[in-house]
Amino acid sequence: MGILIRGASLGGERRDILIEQDRITRIAPSIGGAFPAGLLAIEAEGLAAVPSLANAHAHSAMTLLRGVAEDMELMPWLTGAIWPVEARMTDEDVYWGTRLAAVEMARSGTTVCNDMYLHPEALARAARDSGLRFVLSYALIDGLDEAVGAAQRAACAAFFERLPDCGPLSRFHLAAHSVYATTAESIRLLARQARERGLLFHVHLAETRAEDEGCRARTGLSPAAYLDSLGALGPWTVAAHCLWLDERDFDLLGERGVAIAHNPVSNMKLASGPAFDYEAARRRGLRVLLGTDGAASNNSLDLFADMKIAGLLQKQHYGDSRRFPVREILEAASARGHEVFGTGGGRIVEGAAADLLLVDLDRASMVPCHDLEANLVYSGSGAVVDTTICAGKALMLHRKVEGEAEVFAEARSRAARLSRRT
Amino acid sequence: MGILIRGASLGGERRDILIEQDRITRIAPSIGGAFPAGLLAIEAEGLAAVPSLANAHAHSAMTLLRGVAEDMELMPWLTGAIWPVEARMTDEDVYWGTRLAAVEMARSGTTVCNDMYLHPEALARAARDSGLRFVLSYALIDGLDEAVGAAQRAACAAFFERLPDCGPLSRFHLAAHSVYATTAESIRLLARQARERGLLFHVHLAETRAEDEGCRARTGLSPAAYLDSLGALGPWTVAAHCLWLDERDFDLLGERGVAIAHNPVSNMKLASGPAFDYEAARRRGLRVLLGTDGAASNNSLDLFADMKIAGLLQKQHYGDSRRFPVREILEAASARGHEVFGTGGGRIVEGAAADLLLVDLDRASMVPCHDLEANLVYSGSGAVVDTTICAGKALMLHRKVEGEAEVFAEARSRAARLSRRT
Repeated sequence: MGILIRGASLGGERRDILIEQDRITRIAPSIGGAFPAGLLAIEAEGLAAVPSLANAHAHSAMTLLRGVAEDMELMPWLTGAIWPVEARMTDEDVYWGTRLAAVEMARSGTTVCNDMYLHPEALARAARDSGLRFVLSYALIDGLDEAVGAAQRAACAAFFERLPDCGPLSRFHLAAHSVYATTAESIRLLARQARERGLLFHVHLAETRAEDEGCRARTGLSPAAYLDSLGALGPWTVAAHCLWLDERDFDLLGERGVAIAHNPVSNMKLASGPAFDYEAARRRGLRVLLGTDGAASNNSLDLFADMKIAGLLQKQHYGDSRRFPVREILEAASARGHEVFGTGGGRIVEGAAADLLLVDLDRASMVPCHDLEANLVYSGSGAVVDTTICAGKALMLHRKVEGEAEVFAEARSRAARLSRRT
Repeated sequence: MGILIRGASLGGERRDILIEQDRITRIAPSIGGAFPAGLLAIEAEGLAAVPSLANAHAHSAMTLLRGVAEDMELMPWLTGAIWPVEARMTDEDVYWGTRLAAVEMARSGTTVCNDMYLHPEALARAARDSGLRFVLSYALIDGLDEAVGAAQRAACAAFFERLPDCGPLSRFHLAAHSVYATTAESIRLLARQARERGLLFHVHLAETRAEDEGCRARTGLSPAAYLDSLGALGPWTVAAHCLWLDERDFDLLGERGVAIAHNPVSNMKLASGPAFDYEAARRRGLRVLLGTDGAASNNSLDLFADMKIAGLLQKQHYGDSRRFPVREILEAASARGHEVFGTGGGRIVEGAAADLLLVDLDRASMVPCHDLEANLVYSGSGAVVDTTICAGKALMLHRKVEGEAEVFAEARSRAARLSRRT
């Protein structure tokens, strides 16, 4: 087994790359010798090898709701279009929605996804069957309705007693939905467990003005300060959004070493607030990652497209074309995500995990190639990905993803059923 | 000759579409009968037929400068990175840069491009050889340097005495670069010629704060009012950008019936100013179109990607997720552009010009399809285009563009030569 990539462009040089098990074991101008039977040889003439991307915040199963409702205000959109459909979603819906997301991410060069959703057994199965790395979490929502909340807490506790098998590449971590949808007691408990068990703690933070104002009215604290008062901020915290932060909040997140999942497309589409302040985060050494959020508010899971939009948003909103330079965007979408999610990938060097892409240089949008990284961020799009390798396996080989027709058919019929009942 | 598209999805119904010469001549559930020899039959199972896109503002040859300099302030970027390279560009560079742009646009579903650049003989040749519809114009820049300006005016006048052949699909119209780079005398003359000869008048308008302040200081008028004082605003005017407009400017543009080419990506990337105010334009019935601008400041020419970003920008900047709804975005990028540029296309009906796309519904990002138009704008990207037909000819057929390898090779070597001398 294993993969031999022949003649890829790596850092501008022609290189062969040998992958054994889930690792890159050799990189050289030419690798010959006797190879084990079953070695997959990939001719990579005209292809550049680059690290794969890491999606730092998603609700993958929401692919089934892609385009279901557009151009609405947040609350009517949620209460009228999204929540009623989500309430009807079954385990099988979540399974196929997540499988569809995995195909879309493989096609657009993402090999690890930090996901938060419900129906955790279905998530586990979908993660295992997809071959992608999923950082899974069950979004505990026990603060909106007392009776439902108690049942959710019990289900969540029971779930963690007997975690389902999600395969060798994925793992369950911990999540609280948010300061408005999760009780203080549960946030405190989940964060303590994350800290003690070496897991991540995934939470939505400061996404909307209503969240900010509501939290201040209820607790006298900003959402960030309130999370901190519950012991929920640390280097193991991945906080999604972080739009409504003041300077003291940024200081606090900096002191705690939190990682931020920035979701430019979803934030813009839902008009969630001011633009995330990348410079404020960078000045404090915060680890900024990039996420797509769910497909209902993106509506794609193509992190290449979102890299471009992330750069454009910073430049436009802050009136400075020097903001969020190309290499920092790529770092947020790739190496730093691999680091936070512990894949061992994110760099193409011997010994690293084999999470990498072969990118087609013979596409009009990649010609000429004055600067490969600028092309990847600003002209590429996920469509330039020819081959996606995750943990030593080719999820997509020369633009073919095995089994995707079945995934599309299931996703279509489930999405149609879900929307018919609206 | 001609094309028969078999079994495409059109408005959700299965349809055959017959194309003869450059027109759609028949649309029916099934078209049989004796066809002329050489008819191209396209099996369109799983493909949706949609109108092609119209790029309302580009400098196509700037593909050669794609990614040449990133994350710089506008003036150092222009004076240090862009203008020195442009000054060295030859006719052949402009020819191959424009050919590359035409390939990229064909791949991403654009069949008509409103282009403004120098080296008009090269533009004409590239337009003719590309098969795309080009609305060409020679950007007169005679207001920056007196001697150069006089020479440019003479060259421009001579050029219009003997227009080169740009093929049956393209035509030269008129352009002044801008109120700061073109003299009042030339703007007045060009606008009068456009009016009298039934041509378009293409101009950059209110792109930067410096343009706005400079014009007011020099003339006592806003750039829009100044153009109007020169007789340069009418229904034949295509004004690109229109960022720095006040309410009176919008009123004026509305009264004159100007068409606006909005370029969201370039404006954001260069941090050119506030977001274009789509609502202010819509309220006055202004015809808003969508453009990519040059690849040096985009860096792609994929108008599908720019449709998404146009919607996101309006929602984010104006804090209202209802702004610039899906169908209005599509109208700006397609039907209205075809109308302004007089292609006869933009709708798939019998008798219309055959400018249409077959879009792949079997792509992860297009599944499910609750709303085809929402998918086209927000999850598609140009990569979902399978086939692009322009004036009855297939520029791209099942993702193959004839002759693109030669275009890539020429563009690469010319781009390398241009940047080496920087």
